[in-house]
This record gives sequence, C-alpha cells and structure tokens, in this order.
Amino acid sequence: MQIGIVGLGLIGASLAGDWRSLGHEIVGVSRQQSTCNIAIERGLADRSSTDMAILAGVDTIVICTPIDKILPTIEQLLPYISAHTVVTDAGSVKAAIVADATKICPNFVGGHPMAGTAQSGIEAAERGMFANKPYILTPIAATNPQAIESVAELVRSLDCQLYYATPSQHDLAVAWISHLPVMVSASLIAACMGEVDPEVLKLAQNLASSGFKDTSRVGGGNPELGTMMARYNRDALLKSLVGYRDRLDGIIDAIESHHWEEISTTLSQNQIDRSEFL
Amino acid sequence: MQIGIVGLGLIGASLAGDWRSLGHEIVGVSRQQSTCNIAIERGLADRSSTDMAILAGVDTIVICTPIDKILPTIEQLLPYISAHTVVTDAGSVKAAIVADATKICPNFVGGHPMAGTAQSGIEAAERGMFANKPYILTPIAATNPQAIESVAELVRSLDCQLYYATPSQHDLAVAWISHLPVMVSASLIAACMGEVDPEVLKLAQNLASSGFKDTSRVGGGNPELGTMMARYNRDALLKSLVGYRDRLDGIIDAIESHHWEEISTTLSQNQIDRSEFL
Repeated sequence: MQIGIVGLGLIGASLAGDWRSLGHEIVGVSRQQSTCNIAIERGLADRSSTDMAILAGVDTIVICTPIDKILPTIEQLLPYISAHTVVTDAGSVKAAIVADATKICPNFVGGHPMAGTAQSGIEAAERGMFANKPYILTPIAATNPQAIESVAELVRSLDCQLYYATPSQHDLAVAWISHLPVMVSASLIAACMGEVDPEVLKLAQNLASSGFKDTSRVGGGNPELGTMMARYNRDALLKSLVGYRDRLDGIIDAIESHHWEEISTTLSQNQIDRSEFL
Repeated sequence: MQIGIVGLGLIGASLAGDWRSLGHEIVGVSRQQSTCNIAIERGLADRSSTDMAILAGVDTIVICTPIDKILPTIEQLLPYISAHTVVTDAGSVKAAIVADATKICPNFVGGHPMAGTAQSGIEAAERGMFANKPYILTPIAATNPQAIESVAELVRSLDCQLYYATPSQHDLAVAWISHLPVMVSASLIAACMGEVDPEVLKLAQNLASSGFKDTSRVGGGNPELGTMMARYNRDALLKSLVGYRDRLDGIIDAIESHHWEEISTTLSQNQIDRSEFL
C-alpha cells in the first residue's frame, strides 16, 4: 500500500518507519526540507517533499501535524485525493476535528495513537513505539465503513491495542487520564515556585524526592502540547477540572474541620481504587 | 555507642541495621514480640524487647514510631533515661513534636530521615537506605548543643545529606514537596473514580498510561501515613493547599476565558522552573 504521512515529527516519523518496514511505500510531507532529507536518509520514507502534490495517488494519508493544523491540512489535501483515498489523523483530541473533517472528506477516520516519549521531532522516531499501546479510532455515523476497516488493518499491523469510541467519549476519557493530570500537575509547580518563601523553597528543593518528581512530571512537559489540549478539548477538560476541584475542596474542608476519619476513608478508598484501575 | 530504637518498622529497623553494621550496640523495642524476634534473627539488634526498661543506660534513643505515638513514647521513656541520654525521632512533621518534646527532655533533637520504599515493616528493612538521602535535624533555642552534635554525627555516619532547619521551616518545606502532592494526587484519583460515567471510565482505564500513573501514585499510597501528615502538619498543609487551589483556579479561569496565551506562558515557565528545581 502507498501511505502518505503529513508531519514527520515523533509520531509521524515513527509510524512511517514501522509501516515501511512492513513493506508499505511511504510518502512523507514536512514543512521543512531538512526533515524530508532526514526521512529519506534514515529509511523512514521512500519519497518526501514539502509539497502536498507528492501525495497524489496514495491510498491512505495519515495527518500527524499539531492539532490546530489538522483541518487546514485536510483542506490543502483535497486537490490531491480521490474518492477512494482514506484519510486519518493522529490528533489527541477528536470532537473538534472529526465532524468537520468528515464533512469535507467522507473517507476520514479519526485516530489517536497513544504512544510517545519525552522527546519530540524526527530525530526521536522509534521503531515499535506503538506496539502494545492503545490506538483509538473514533468513527461517526457518516464515516465510510470501508475506510474504518482499512485504517483498523493498518493499526492492527502495528500490534496496537485497538479501541473504538465516539469522539466525545474519547475526549472525556483523555481529559480525565491525560489532560487533567497535566493541569493538576502544572498547578503544583506554579504554586510551589510562586508561593513559597525563598528560604523554604531552597530547603524544599534539597528535600524534593520521587513524590514531588512524579506528581509534577507532566505539568513540566511540552507547553505547546498542553496548550493545544486545553484549547481543543476545552469542554471535556473543564468538566474534569470542575469535578477535580470539588474533590480538592472536600479534602481542604475535611482538613480545616479536623475530620481525620474522612481523610482516612478517602485515602483508603483511593489505595484500593487506584490499584484496581491500573 | 549503645543506641536504642523504639519502633522497628521500615525506618527504625533500617537505621538499626546500618548503625549495628558500623559497630554500635543496638537495643530494639517493639510493641510486638514477634518483631523483636525478627530483629534479633536478622542481626538488626543485639537485644530486643517489648518493655521500654531494656533501654535503661543506652546513650541515644531514636523514636521511629508513627507520629501520634512519639510524644507518648517520650513520656514512657522518662523513667529509663538519664540527664545524658540523647533522644531523637524520625517523624515526618516537626513543629507538633519538637517544642513539647524539648520541654520534657532537653536532650531531644527533632529529626527526619527522608528515605523509604513503597513497602513497610521490619521485613522491608534495607541496608544503606539512607545514604545520599536528606536527613533534616530541627533543633530549637532550648536544644542542648551537645545533643545536636551527637545526633548529627550518627546521621553523618549513614552518609546522609544533613540539613538543619527550624521545625516550622521543615514543616512548610515538606508540606509543599511531600504532603501537598499527596492531597493533589488523592483528589485526582477520587475525582476520576467518583465523577466519571462508567463507560468513559472503562475507556479511560484502557488508555491510562504513565501520565496518569505518575500523577496519581502518591495519592494511592499508605492511607495512615497520609492522614497523619494532614493531622500533624495541618497548618502548613492548609497553607500550601490554599496556594495550590489559587493556581488551579487561575488555570480554570484561563481555560474558561479562552486565554490560551496565559496557559502557554504558565506551562512554558513550569517547564523551565521544574527542570531548574529538580
């Protein structure tokens, strides 16, 4: 199969490498000529260009750009795709994209491969990065069933855990387990750095261990990605943030009111729930 | 030196093992005879008993009980200590203990070894667990300087990073980097399990990866310890929780108001601050 990949960052270049090693012909598109060159040098693509026209005639196109570039990219692709071309994306939010994308391209299937590393860019591309990781497809009623099956087959070939969900179910689920943790963790860093007396902060720095490191990790990650999550998954994220703040307020109230039994009950239930959940 | 250890859990038994292997004579006290037997069998103590009287004549006593038992333990020890006996503790909060402990025992030096594992109890005791880890001493004006130096020497012999702080500085610092993360993380688990629609929760469970795992880790930990932190470090923890909620509210407001530049600025600053802090 000929597969076009638009956006040769960590996700796009890793998908390209995996599918090429399975025998597919990979056509890569990047905004940067230097990235196109690296894709060829590293054997991640057979052909590569900064010009979308190179994608004319490919069977499937996977859009791996930042979230805000997905819809504009589909519009730019229209002159080069046929009625048979299947188009999918790798964006981490789906409701803001799928309905509009399906209107302009009935063979569009929303997708979200949930893998990655702390690095970004083509240099960080890894073979086998998606194996045993979740890959969610979010078809809607208007999605062409053959397009769904075609993308599903490509996903299965990566040994992913394939899930189907509606765009809004997907967005709520990732809000809770991915986007909310970023904001919870970001608030911790911002509060610690902004609120603490300098002498205490110096001591805190010396004492900080795995508890602070782990809880603050995702809040200190890629700021562009975090902002995109908030912007394009605003409604689901706000819902989870408000639910979170209610629980936090409950804990603050219990501590203020010396209700230690309530704190103990919450923490005991958490210990059971987290271990069952993960 | 003869060192008495009261409370042979993870911390007490690990300190006992390290100091005994440095040539000190270790006298262990536990509420359970079975724990005393294990301490002897494993070579963690030279003598061990459930009766405090065994501590008569030792040079230094280290209280490694849960926080709420530290002051009662010092009172029980009074018949067996002399004017020269140095007493220290391993509690993770200090203001609630040090002033009162010093009143009844002028050779008391507040201490907090910041090491541990996810396990607890004498079976989890490890040699070298404190090496290269912070160990804070929190003397006050009334503390006998010779007692401070004597405890400091024992701490240095473990190859710890030795810090001095006032009890209230210590409590604020650990509130921010240890106790606040527990409550932040606990609220995440409670909100996720309590607020999410069952179908979305099932999907979230399938998608949960390192971001959720890390951010929820300390909130799913030992509930007794978490409750003790909240109870005995209430004021410092509430201060940090209120500061944290302010930052969280700021993030929620920015998302509600579509102030994406503000989210981006906060996350960018976080990325820099966290990497400098750790």
